[in-house]
Amino acid sequence: MTKRMPFLSDNAASVHPDIWDALRQADNPDMPYDGDGLSASLDDRFSEIFGRECAAIWVATGTAANCLGLATLCQPHGGVVCHEEAHIEVDEGGAPGFFLHGAKLMLCADGHGAESAKLTPESIAALIDPIRDDVHQVQPHAIAITQASEYGCTYRPEELAALSEFAKERGLGLHMDGARFANAAAFLGGSSSDAAGHVDTLSFGFIKNGGMSAEALVLFDPAQADLVKYRRKRAGHLQCKGRYLAAQIHAMLDGDLWLENARSANAAAAEIAAGCDERLMHPVEANEVFARCTAEEREALRSQGFDFYDWGADAARFVAAWNTREEDAVALGKAIAAL
Amino acid sequence: MTKRMPFLSDNAASVHPDIWDALRQADNPDMPYDGDGLSASLDDRFSEIFGRECAAIWVATGTAANCLGLATLCQPHGGVVCHEEAHIEVDEGGAPGFFLHGAKLMLCADGHGAESAKLTPESIAALIDPIRDDVHQVQPHAIAITQASEYGCTYRPEELAALSEFAKERGLGLHMDGARFANAAAFLGGSSSDAAGHVDTLSFGFIKNGGMSAEALVLFDPAQADLVKYRRKRAGHLQCKGRYLAAQIHAMLDGDLWLENARSANAAAAEIAAGCDERLMHPVEANEVFARCTAEEREALRSQGFDFYDWGADAARFVAAWNTREEDAVALGKAIAAL
Amino acid sequence: MTKRMPFLSDNAASVHPDIWDALRQADNPDMPYDGDGLSASLDDRFSEIFGRECAAIWVATGTAANCLGLATLCQPHGGVVCHEEAHIEVDEGGAPGFFLHGAKLMLCADGHGAESAKLTPESIAALIDPIRDDVHQVQPHAIAITQASEYGCTYRPEELAALSEFAKERGLGLHMDGARFANAAAFLGGSSSDAAGHVDTLSFGFIKNGGMSAEALVLFDPAQADLVKYRRKRAGHLQCKGRYLAAQIHAMLDGDLWLENARSANAAAAEIAAGCDERLMHPVEANEVFARCTAEEREALRSQGFDFYDWGADAARFVAAWNTREEDAVALGKAIAAL
Amino acid sequence: MTKRMPFLSDNAASVHPDIWDALRQADNPDMPYDGDGLSASLDDRFSEIFGRECAAIWVATGTAANCLGLATLCQPHGGVVCHEEAHIEVDEGGAPGFFLHGAKLMLCADGHGAESAKLTPESIAALIDPIRDDVHQVQPHAIAITQASEYGCTYRPEELAALSEFAKERGLGLHMDGARFANAAAFLGGSSSDAAGHVDTLSFGFIKNGGMSAEALVLFDPAQADLVKYRRKRAGHLQCKGRYLAAQIHAMLDGDLWLENARSANAAAAEIAAGCDERLMHPVEANEVFARCTAEEREALRSQGFDFYDWGADAARFVAAWNTREEDAVALGKAIAAL
Repeated sequence: MTKRMPFLSDNAASVHPDIWDALRQADNPDMPYDGDGLSASLDDRFSEIFGRECAAIWVATGTAANCLGLATLCQPHGGVVCHEEAHIEVDEGGAPGFFLHGAKLMLCADGHGAESAKLTPESIAALIDPIRDDVHQVQPHAIAITQASEYGCTYRPEELAALSEFAKERGLGLHMDGARFANAAAFLGGSSSDAAGHVDTLSFGFIKNGGMSAEALVLFDPAQADLVKYRRKRAGHLQCKGRYLAAQIHAMLDGDLWLENARSANAAAAEIAAGCDERLMHPVEANEVFARCTAEEREALRSQGFDFYDWGADAARFVAAWNTREEDAVALGKAIAAL
Repeated sequence: MTKRMPFLSDNAASVHPDIWDALRQADNPDMPYDGDGLSASLDDRFSEIFGRECAAIWVATGTAANCLGLATLCQPHGGVVCHEEAHIEVDEGGAPGFFLHGAKLMLCADGHGAESAKLTPESIAALIDPIRDDVHQVQPHAIAITQASEYGCTYRPEELAALSEFAKERGLGLHMDGARFANAAAFLGGSSSDAAGHVDTLSFGFIKNGGMSAEALVLFDPAQADLVKYRRKRAGHLQCKGRYLAAQIHAMLDGDLWLENARSANAAAAEIAAGCDERLMHPVEANEVFARCTAEEREALRSQGFDFYDWGADAARFVAAWNTREEDAVALGKAIAAL
Repeated sequence: MTKRMPFLSDNAASVHPDIWDALRQADNPDMPYDGDGLSASLDDRFSEIFGRECAAIWVATGTAANCLGLATLCQPHGGVVCHEEAHIEVDEGGAPGFFLHGAKLMLCADGHGAESAKLTPESIAALIDPIRDDVHQVQPHAIAITQASEYGCTYRPEELAALSEFAKERGLGLHMDGARFANAAAFLGGSSSDAAGHVDTLSFGFIKNGGMSAEALVLFDPAQADLVKYRRKRAGHLQCKGRYLAAQIHAMLDGDLWLENARSANAAAAEIAAGCDERLMHPVEANEVFARCTAEEREALRSQGFDFYDWGADAARFVAAWNTREEDAVALGKAIAAL
Repeated sequence: MTKRMPFLSDNAASVHPDIWDALRQADNPDMPYDGDGLSASLDDRFSEIFGRECAAIWVATGTAANCLGLATLCQPHGGVVCHEEAHIEVDEGGAPGFFLHGAKLMLCADGHGAESAKLTPESIAALIDPIRDDVHQVQPHAIAITQASEYGCTYRPEELAALSEFAKERGLGLHMDGARFANAAAFLGGSSSDAAGHVDTLSFGFIKNGGMSAEALVLFDPAQADLVKYRRKRAGHLQCKGRYLAAQIHAMLDGDLWLENARSANAAAAEIAAGCDERLMHPVEANEVFARCTAEEREALRSQGFDFYDWGADAARFVAAWNTREEDAVALGKAIAAL
């Protein structure tokens, strides 16, 4: 039987050993919910990382983190501008509609000639400028971007600066879906601040990066923390043994494990990309590779042991995880090159 | 320094060793979300336990389990009858209002002369019979009961039978909040079926009983499973590494660990109760003891190392967990008796 | 056949001739929605009446006015304190749950020894002081009172002052359901300001007072007007021929027709009350009379031509409208006295 | 001063004299809400018109009618397929998101080469076939079409038959926004059934056709009526003097006034269209004319006394109402031809 080499997704990878250690160390009685010491220190921990005061809470899914963040920026009668392929639009089962009580996702075209799934002030303006300023039309309240994007592309600091300036001018909130924030930060050289820019809320992902069940929602306006905590409880997301979630986050941040894991995944993706050449659909700036290939070619790759998802009829998506073995990535790159 | 003996709650206790083992065994790549084998086998597992066909899904909190269950039984314009001290009313931060899109909790008085936090057909009828059958008044759609109740009392099979018959007659759904279902089942001799009666949906708790982060929502009408799964996703409760939740549940059910843990907690509570005598406010039929005692008496107990919550101005609540040491419970019982 | 004398309710009475005239005068082409001159002048009109700057919009029902007002004062995760028999609780079909996205109504006992359906700072404090200040419990965001109350009682200026002071101290919004605001104002001598006190939002009723289909929502913080207008549209309450609603309101305010109508109804109620003596359940301070009487007595009254609703098993409610004939009211009073 | 000739919209036109008569005749005491005889007979009236059993209720706006109808066909976690320019998407202030608790509008491209704002089974299939059948993606529950469409085009019976067959195959509900249903029916020769096809719910508009404040929501599955009535109340749309709404609807249906008014408006639109020739953007099949013309041309028309809305940068929309004078329409047609 052929050895299987998994490039399906990073979202089901095993848990990093350091996370296991942290979980076991948290296995003492402590206060329930977020009353334990590990949970209580998250604000300081993230404030240090971003070099500015912020608040942070744990939740078990990126969907919850995104929606709780967006709910601080958009009222039920407003709209959230996002890319037409944004995860919140196409892959979260309508969760924004639930958490935001019916607010509307306003689908924005790609901001770049080469498709990147990234927004620009221009692409957003093209969407929202024609909206009449009256009660008959839903008005935008916020913008949501994804770092790294759904196509594996990373916003540069100057792109983020332009977006936050635009958002400020228009009175819009700015949320970042950072399910793969670590991969973007690693790609940008390891600076959290460079990767986050001046967003208002950030869903900082750990689960796809070697964690088990904890993401962080970072609020750069700490005054919103109280509101978000009520909403987290109301959404059934306040776990009573919260220390096991906080412990995962601390372990990820300790010694920059989050960056180390992301660098490893990015490097594996680069190996794959190296074999793709003209097949690449998007620049590889994180841990995902989108490559054109026929059904026959995909079959050929699968028969060699590579697992991955089709991406439409004429392409494939390969995702590297924190624990993707270098030799597997190299092998995949070569196999693609040899097609 | 005095050794602390924790009777605050069972909701922050450590995780049982068997759960840890199961978590580590689940640490292999598998399909994401609930596509893994452990998640997929939950339906069969619970069908076996209850001796009738049911569907079951994992969620991370009892609040989510309760609300997703209730949402199958009550439409947004309807109401859910519950005890006036029900957890869904007083301790879930308004989550039912969120998940049920504004449905109303209809607060029912205690069904027993001695307060039990249990409902009876009579107490429910007294609440709902005066409701006019017109659109101006919210109509009841469902009943929610708690097993064991918020006062640590256990519904007997005949009480449950009367309630389900009443619900059926009135066309109402019947949900059971089983945050401490194991303790009730253990009290009743270990029969899941006896403890569940003929409810439509059951939030089957494991976290207070030695688990880490997984509860089960059991649907005795499996046709509702599809609907509930969409709603779970939409509420941000579909974790991508779901196998770590399913693993906890299987480990709990294996060899009846859930009953063993509950018996241990119940036995500890019985030791405490033995010292309370006339102080007892409610019969002790699970793992909670509510006892009258003055502020001075509580202070005296705390100075001896016992931690617990005040229960109003004139009482205390002591909760035993799966890992409460027998000697601690005995000591507490004696200390109370000596007051 | 006996002539029928209607004391069922004021909510289905005929429309006052002045309203008809105003409607016909509005029957010219104008801008749609609230772009017409009549709608646009409502802010000024109500600012003049209350002697302070306010904004005002029309809606077609008191339920919509109440809910749109409350939605400016209470977030979805919060609660609204109201009397346990408040109209928003018992007679609006759960509308607050819908408009406020699941916010909770917190039911408060009567603030007076003699039941009045009026709240006091003390009765509210007794309800909300025990609420723990944590995310597990729904926190109160606002208070809703009814003027005149559900039992036909009128808040005095000093009672309103105490409530608004209390609300301010606790950081709570204060809404007034004024379905029978005119009757209360008439009872207090005709001062709008005395009858409204310092509430934040007021549902100013006209329909029960001789109007056809227009109530006003008055916002004493005009900065909320924009928000409320978006929500009115979103709730399907922005009628395109809004001038026909605005016209009704202007006609009601012209020459104090609203007070004249209310005085007439109040006077009729006083005639009825005069015959009730010891039967009265509540002081008659508006246009409603609640009187104890047996089923046989009610039957006797009905056989004499009086129509009214039973009020529980042992009482009746008689409501006078703007067009109740004095002789009918006198006759009813005498008939009751003669029982 | 130039006489103004209004072609802005039909939504602010005056009320037809027959409606006024009916309103005055309804000005007698009757039961409140929808307990009066006029309201109670709506079911029979519409069943007769459509030749099949249906239920019908009044509401004050098309937005409310659309949303209450859609809410019977789409659950909160589902989606409603509609044209990307559908009124529910672009002009109802997000009301569907509110009434449907966050359900998603799924925007469908035009089904015809020449833009018609009409959907076809093919255009819908192209939108929904790529949706993965899993919980991560919102699934379509219903289709909403507009008759006449937002571009003034009318679905033919065979087009409606194809859509209802498609909807049935796919298990989707089918709603018709009939804000200008009368104009479509008139265009098709006057058959209600031809114009409605086999939709499940129909928002039957009267206000744009000479009414004041009443639309009908027709439910072709009468079993839904009870549900819709609870929801109407809950949305604050149950007016207490409902007889004034029912009276309008009966008056419109009496002697086919609704068709007579619509024919008049359609005829006026045809006069305008006659002058447009190559300028026409869409076939004129109701009472709206969309014509290409430059800013200078629009200015020229306005200086001649014609009022209308710009339609983007390069076009104008002219709407005829029930009371548009033939000479005005002829004049406008000639003025356009003379540009």
